[in-house]
Amino acid sequence: MKIVFIGAGNLSTHLSKALQNAGFEIVQIYSRTKSSAKQLSEILQVPYTTDIENIKYDASLYFVSVSDDAIKDVLESLKQFEGLVVHTAGSVSIDVFSTKFKNFGVFYPLQTFSKQRQIDFSNVPVFLEANSQENLQNLLTVAKSISYKVYTASSEERMKLHLSAVFGCNFVNYLYQLSTQIVNQAGFDFDVLSPLIYETAQKAISSGNPKKIQTGPAVRKDYKVIQKHLDYLSSESDLHKIYSLMSESIINQFTN
Amino acid sequence: MKIVFIGAGNLSTHLSKALQNAGFEIVQIYSRTKSSAKQLSEILQVPYTTDIENIKYDASLYFVSVSDDAIKDVLESLKQFEGLVVHTAGSVSIDVFSTKFKNFGVFYPLQTFSKQRQIDFSNVPVFLEANSQENLQNLLTVAKSISYKVYTASSEERMKLHLSAVFGCNFVNYLYQLSTQIVNQAGFDFDVLSPLIYETAQKAISSGNPKKIQTGPAVRKDYKVIQKHLDYLSSESDLHKIYSLMSESIINQFTN
Repeated sequence: MKIVFIGAGNLSTHLSKALQNAGFEIVQIYSRTKSSAKQLSEILQVPYTTDIENIKYDASLYFVSVSDDAIKDVLESLKQFEGLVVHTAGSVSIDVFSTKFKNFGVFYPLQTFSKQRQIDFSNVPVFLEANSQENLQNLLTVAKSISYKVYTASSEERMKLHLSAVFGCNFVNYLYQLSTQIVNQAGFDFDVLSPLIYETAQKAISSGNPKKIQTGPAVRKDYKVIQKHLDYLSSESDLHKIYSLMSESIINQFTN
Repeated sequence: MKIVFIGAGNLSTHLSKALQNAGFEIVQIYSRTKSSAKQLSEILQVPYTTDIENIKYDASLYFVSVSDDAIKDVLESLKQFEGLVVHTAGSVSIDVFSTKFKNFGVFYPLQTFSKQRQIDFSNVPVFLEANSQENLQNLLTVAKSISYKVYTASSEERMKLHLSAVFGCNFVNYLYQLSTQIVNQAGFDFDVLSPLIYETAQKAISSGNPKKIQTGPAVRKDYKVIQKHLDYLSSESDLHKIYSLMSESIINQFTN
């Protein structure tokens, strides 16, 4: 099965490597950014192009892995391939393919990808959607060759999965940032937080249900400590607002 | 060095085990809750008491590891020991010891402890404060025998460390909860989030600076996706409020 990657970002890099390792033939990389196209082309040892007109016509599968905002434009610029065209975005409906393509679908891996970090793709949950049973079967075959955790999900379900990832990954990382700010204010480095961050994640995972293991002043309703913390944070600051809102929400959840 | 533990909760359990493994003699456990006292006493194979009057008088070091709210009352009920009396709380000032004791201090490990999970104490940052150089030296010796990461911190600094842990651990776990809620609404289990939670933590740790690796719709200023997510969350719900506030804060931080 010949595969083309349209987009050469973090997700394309990890996904194309996993597919190549599983024996699929990546035949071409397209990116409008030459440096990205070239970099991935060197990793995979396959040709690249920066001209959307030059994308190969005879592949069986095209991964459109560009930023959510760009998907629509890129699809409009593509020729009407016969092969199966899929995007990889969480919050973009399958309807984005409109009536241009005959074979289309979505291949959404629920993970955060960075070029510098290795990812064991066999452990990454992949959510699939397609315009026909046959295309879905083909995607299932491809996905199962690289991951043990393959599911089907509608566009609505996938949007919710992405939303849950915003809470569980993007917002979590932002809390890590705020936590780092405060630790710096105490005169210490991020290092002193690492064991806590690691254990918090591991504990949630091994609990199977983070609600069971909630700790801290809010769940204990320790209003004295909460007040001490709020007194320290300048009122009207984001830190103050976030501390208040999160604490209130925790208190409410464990009261009702 | 003879040590008494006053309180038999999660922290006492892990700390007393680490100290016993390092060769210190734990001579007694006190807890007003018999089941807790008995449980820890069986783990350590040392006597316990539930009568605060019966706490041994001749120990060199007393760990008061009870809930923040209870510290003051417990200290008032204790006899005037000659030994060094320390508490283990983040947001309780050293002033809580007032003038009753001659030798006192604080021994604060920055970690989240649960009885069911093993903790490698050598990796847990410990923050010390004491009323004299001699007492501080003694605490340093004890702390360094179980952890590679021992620091001194004032009561004000320690409160900030605790506050940063509320953001980096308690609030993070609450976000895991919210993320789980949404993933359930999509018809999936917590399991599909585990690899993401793990990778998010690992990536932050290996980055050394979570700000460098912030991802998601807010930092990309992808207002279309943000709006889609907000439209799904019922307005006035905590999820909606938290999503709005966190997204605004991320956008502001990366704009200024």
